[in-house]
Amino acid sequence: MQSETRYERGQRQLARIDGDAGQAVIEALADIAPDFATYLLEFPFGDIYSRDGLNLRDREIATIAALAAMGTATPQLKVHIQAGLNVGLTRQEITEILMQMAVYAGFPAALNGLFAAKEVFAGEHS
Amino acid sequence: MQSETRYERGQRQLARIDGDAGQAVIEALADIAPDFATYLLEFPFGDIYSRDGLNLRDREIATIAALAAMGTATPQLKVHIQAGLNVGLTRQEITEILMQMAVYAGFPAALNGLFAAKEVFAGEHS
Amino acid sequence: MQSETRYERGQRQLARIDGDAGQAVIEALADIAPDFATYLLEFPFGDIYSRDGLNLRDREIATIAALAAMGTATPQLKVHIQAGLNVGLTRQEITEILMQMAVYAGFPAALNGLFAAKEVFAGEHS
Amino acid sequence: MQSETRYERGQRQLARIDGDAGQAVIEALADIAPDFATYLLEFPFGDIYSRDGLNLRDREIATIAALAAMGTATPQLKVHIQAGLNVGLTRQEITEILMQMAVYAGFPAALNGLFAAKEVFAGEHS
Amino acid sequence: MQSETRYERGQRQLARIDGDAGQAVIEALADIAPDFATYLLEFPFGDIYSRDGLNLRDREIATIAALAAMGTATPQLKVHIQAGLNVGLTRQEITEILMQMAVYAGFPAALNGLFAAKEVFAGEHS
Amino acid sequence: MQSETRYERGQRQLARIDGDAGQAVIEALADIAPDFATYLLEFPFGDIYSRDGLNLRDREIATIAALAAMGTATPQLKVHIQAGLNVGLTRQEITEILMQMAVYAGFPAALNGLFAAKEVFAGEHS
Repeated sequence: MQSETRYERGQRQLARIDGDAGQAVIEALADIAPDFATYLLEFPFGDIYSRDGLNLRDREIATIAALAAMGTATPQLKVHIQAGLNVGLTRQEITEILMQMAVYAGFPAALNGLFAAKEVFAGEHS
Repeated sequence: MQSETRYERGQRQLARIDGDAGQAVIEALADIAPDFATYLLEFPFGDIYSRDGLNLRDREIATIAALAAMGTATPQLKVHIQAGLNVGLTRQEITEILMQMAVYAGFPAALNGLFAAKEVFAGEHS
Repeated sequence: MQSETRYERGQRQLARIDGDAGQAVIEALADIAPDFATYLLEFPFGDIYSRDGLNLRDREIATIAALAAMGTATPQLKVHIQAGLNVGLTRQEITEILMQMAVYAGFPAALNGLFAAKEVFAGEHS
Repeated sequence: MQSETRYERGQRQLARIDGDAGQAVIEALADIAPDFATYLLEFPFGDIYSRDGLNLRDREIATIAALAAMGTATPQLKVHIQAGLNVGLTRQEITEILMQMAVYAGFPAALNGLFAAKEVFAGEHS
Repeated sequence: MQSETRYERGQRQLARIDGDAGQAVIEALADIAPDFATYLLEFPFGDIYSRDGLNLRDREIATIAALAAMGTATPQLKVHIQAGLNVGLTRQEITEILMQMAVYAGFPAALNGLFAAKEVFAGEHS
Repeated sequence: MQSETRYERGQRQLARIDGDAGQAVIEALADIAPDFATYLLEFPFGDIYSRDGLNLRDREIATIAALAAMGTATPQLKVHIQAGLNVGLTRQEITEILMQMAVYAGFPAALNGLFAAKEVFAGEHS
């Protein structure tokens, strides 16, 4: 029996974590940089998110915090706020993570993160 | 019976989370900006880290990720790598968080975070 | 006679500095993170902007410069360009601050700051 | 015979590199900061881009990489993706530069750069 | 009578604002990029800092705030903390500017700025 | 005959581009995050730098520009200034790239990049 490739493992993890939003990113890359879609499946999802040693819920805490603190990646922050909900974070926990970013990256970073979360939460079937 | 003030609660949380390193920061501020030491105890520790809704281990995942991704706060990253160990993260979990930052903030951010962790781990009594 | 609380002092300062735009931010937080609205009033406005030692006009020079240089907080930059006008900066002075950011954060940061100012100035009753 | 001024040399270089998009930026500055339009022509274009020692194609590689990595200057990144095409970079080369930024500034920076390029390429007469 | 060149005006302003530290930067560039020393005198100092419309004290408020918020330019932040003192800011005012950066760029940015100021103040003849 | 693995191709590219400095990074990771050394060889070097479509000299222009503009990765900037020399950039070309970053990321970013280059050039056998 063949073992799963990095690409296949990445596809499976992307579907589990990011759902439709992840697939939309892959498709948007098809006409400009299809190889980059492959790398995105293989390295972040096939390698990093597939590792033992930190569970997916904890990984999404780290990703939401990092993207909100950086403040340069609003589309990806929204994808990972949804991803956080998908892997078991509550709305309250995500809100706490974003509020905490005021301490490390300033109040505007926290505010912009909270308003991104507000949009994601509004679009979700609760 | 008097309820604990924000300042007192912040002192208690700082001692619990950052230990001696936190106290050293407070003391280093004494001659230049003593009021800022007060704010540091009151807002981040007395307000944010004292909130329910996200436990301290999860809060340190968020902080380590954010500081490593930003790449502008090495002293504070080291303090919070130690803080992460203090509140229950394992060395392996911290290493996983830092490696994951390669995806969101680039390989140099992850490398510099890992080398900061290496210093903290080396100085710790294991 | 009761002394003013941090929250009350923050409300007064926010109204004075940011006017309606500040109140709109507080209201936008009501359904997602009402506690964060409280912190925003208490720490930045009730604590920092209420301190002696630097007047409000000088504080807004600092804030406009910082937000333009960071380049990650356009909504907040616009609020503080209006705030600068509210507390006594002239349009010319704000334009000079933004132009100067070309030296420290690059020409794109200055350009994006100037275009934000252009929008704010256009919406103002002069 | 008079030698060309910095301003005139900057105008010539801006037209050659950025084309209409550069001129649009100059015009947008006319009512808010006309002196800044002058500086923009004189220093970046009249001084830096007019230097020997690195050709324009190589200069645009550097600019596209820097703006994509910083992630705070999407309008300027688009102008310079078009500028790269104007001075001889191929679409494939620009795509490679942007993909490479995943290594240094993270996958979101690369993705946002690639989507900016997709817009520019779509608007271009090929 | 000849009018002053941008270079000469820049030299005069650099000496007035940054004093010896500015001259040291110019000299450090001599063997690697002497033209860059010229640009540094001409554009930031000969053009920007020589403009009317914002006085030097206000310009240094903006620069100290921006460099502290960015967190990527500690040597330049120290030079401009000294420059602020040279053009009339008090130690207290500089401390207030740096504390305020906690609101916009996070507590680590403010702390690292305050510790930079502590070093500059300690080295100064008071 | 077996085709080269990503890991092997990455090792070959790392040796060619970064030389001893690259190997030193791999070894420094051995006791804290050996898997990250593997990823570093496989993705940046085995995948990205091994791609056709942009030659190594052009890739190093992009990397030097990005790292200097970001200002958060001085050790990696030095490694890639040496890498640039290794793959055919001249000292003058590297100096031009770094000077140009003043336009996009500000004078401090350019200055700190030039001083990093000065250190690398001084340590090199010319």
